[in-house]
Amino acid sequence: MLNDFLTRREEQNEAVLRNADKVIKRIYSIDSLAYNEGALTVKTKELLGLTASLVLRCDDCIAWHLHQCYKVNVTTEEISEALGIGMVVSGTITVPHVRKAMTLWESFEKDETFEK
Amino acid sequence: MLNDFLTRREEQNEAVLRNADKVIKRIYSIDSLAYNEGALTVKTKELLGLTASLVLRCDDCIAWHLHQCYKVNVTTEEISEALGIGMVVSGTITVPHVRKAMTLWESFEKDETFEK
Amino acid sequence: MLNDFLTRREEQNEAVLRNADKVIKRIYSIDSLAYNEGALTVKTKELLGLTASLVLRCDDCIAWHLHQCYKVNVTTEEISEALGIGMVVSGTITVPHVRKAMTLWESFEKDETFEK
Amino acid sequence: MLNDFLTRREEQNEAVLRNADKVIKRIYSIDSLAYNEGALTVKTKELLGLTASLVLRCDDCIAWHLHQCYKVNVTTEEISEALGIGMVVSGTITVPHVRKAMTLWESFEKDETFEK
Amino acid sequence: MLNDFLTRREEQNEAVLRNADKVIKRIYSIDSLAYNEGALTVKTKELLGLTASLVLRCDDCIAWHLHQCYKVNVTTEEISEALGIGMVVSGTITVPHVRKAMTLWESFEKDETFEK
Amino acid sequence: MLNDFLTRREEQNEAVLRNADKVIKRIYSIDSLAYNEGALTVKTKELLGLTASLVLRCDDCIAWHLHQCYKVNVTTEEISEALGIGMVVSGTITVPHVRKAMTLWESFEKDETFEK
Repeated sequence: MLNDFLTRREEQNEAVLRNADKVIKRIYSIDSLAYNEGALTVKTKELLGLTASLVLRCDDCIAWHLHQCYKVNVTTEEISEALGIGMVVSGTITVPHVRKAMTLWESFEKDETFEK
Repeated sequence: MLNDFLTRREEQNEAVLRNADKVIKRIYSIDSLAYNEGALTVKTKELLGLTASLVLRCDDCIAWHLHQCYKVNVTTEEISEALGIGMVVSGTITVPHVRKAMTLWESFEKDETFEK
Repeated sequence: MLNDFLTRREEQNEAVLRNADKVIKRIYSIDSLAYNEGALTVKTKELLGLTASLVLRCDDCIAWHLHQCYKVNVTTEEISEALGIGMVVSGTITVPHVRKAMTLWESFEKDETFEK
Repeated sequence: MLNDFLTRREEQNEAVLRNADKVIKRIYSIDSLAYNEGALTVKTKELLGLTASLVLRCDDCIAWHLHQCYKVNVTTEEISEALGIGMVVSGTITVPHVRKAMTLWESFEKDETFEK
Repeated sequence: MLNDFLTRREEQNEAVLRNADKVIKRIYSIDSLAYNEGALTVKTKELLGLTASLVLRCDDCIAWHLHQCYKVNVTTEEISEALGIGMVVSGTITVPHVRKAMTLWESFEKDETFEK
Repeated sequence: MLNDFLTRREEQNEAVLRNADKVIKRIYSIDSLAYNEGALTVKTKELLGLTASLVLRCDDCIAWHLHQCYKVNVTTEEISEALGIGMVVSGTITVPHVRKAMTLWESFEKDETFEK
């Protein structure tokens, strides 16, 4: 299910950039910059992005950061603790998003077709 | 449409619990505890859960609490007033969720297959 | 501390109504209507307002509904369960608001000057 | 894709109004009133509704206001700047909604079947 | 009360910029860019910023945009309609913020010391 | 300013626990558990708590996690990157909170009286 998400995401990003003013373009550019290696590792930054996405309850954002976490070899135990902190902070209203997140995470292991 | 939701919910909960740390497991356990009979009745607690879910705009949470309300014989008038308070507090941004909620609620009366 | 809040609230409401268009005036009018006795009791409606205010994390709104709850003889046990459901739904981000809420609630018992 | 949305929206609104108490009905009525011509033009008001819907991240609300904006001849440059302000205010958590918004906006130009 | 806010704001912004990484600096820079004259006027953009700030319930952001609106000669009627749309969209949870906003707006007329 | 916050926090927590039902007590207990060393370090978990608190815009929560970060020797560069990610995700609506956060963080270095 990740590949469908990534394809749709890319197509829609093209629609955004065809119509974006310079403000929108700069936000896209900062978004890439923020997750680069720095004083914090890429792994820590992606976990920050994941937990922030969970407490704000954005499924697409969670899916994106889960994929990035998978690419940099975050473990299931680490994902679980990061989602756990998000659930403590933001409560059971996050549960439907955690359900989708864990289901997607398990699919990464089983589906050999998506990009790592 | 409720049964599809409940089936998917259960499958995804299993994915959560296969991967959950103890923090996530405890949140699941508190979630059950909170809606038990106490100084407030189950009915009042489910209405609190429903209105909280509406103002936070979580369709899955609304569907869950609507079903629980139906099981304990909350009336349509009571549902309408509880949703009405949520709409007053949280504004027209809740309207798409109220639309789905009322449509689901009506389906309970017509669909004899779902569990009460 | 409630009386200061109520006085400031009234003064500021006058500023709103001096400048309000008819949309704002109608929202004020619906706000009163929503908490009237109906299929649900005033007490249940005030608890719905309280829990909604907690999960949306609005201290002034919480203070208002706590006062209304006090006027209609809601007990401390009932307040605690309603706040507890809000905390489960919306997580520890609500804790600073629960701290203020419980402190205010205790002050009602000790302060004989505020209006019941 | 707009027509499907508008049809479903209308059917579900009927479910709401079949079950609504007077509070819900009044909110529906204020919702129409708020976007009428006044000191601000309909165009400015619809842009306010659009940006408010983006920062609160409600896809249905965004779709609705985009359609209204299209009807009153808002340009793509104006939509882009209004969405850009929403993105600056509310951050990259809005990006999935901007993706859908821009894709829908482009579809208006290509699809001759929807109501203007 | 505006001048106190502006002074504190400036002092605290200096603390941010002393410690900011390049991501934070770029966000500050986009924030200025977004409200410049473009396809939309400065006035419309400030009203968008005001309404977005109201529905997200940020008093400091509301105060800032109210001041900017005052500088570009937005009228009280226009402020009232923009706040009215925010209240309809986001409900009575915004009322405490509207109370402060209208009180601040009235103070602009009476206080000759703040910068226009 | 931290010490005032910590004192008030402790007094108010006592008011909560005097009146709490078991649901509230369990949430307090999970809150401690979630930030213990595990697959993720205490430092990473506190940064997750900090960024989650920023995107949800809770000043008290930010102050708490800043203090915890200071105790486990998080550097200013790391704080800045974690806040930067929160600002990218959640936008300029977080700026007033970042202003307070950076001002508080600087005060830790200057004030020798607070507990590390």
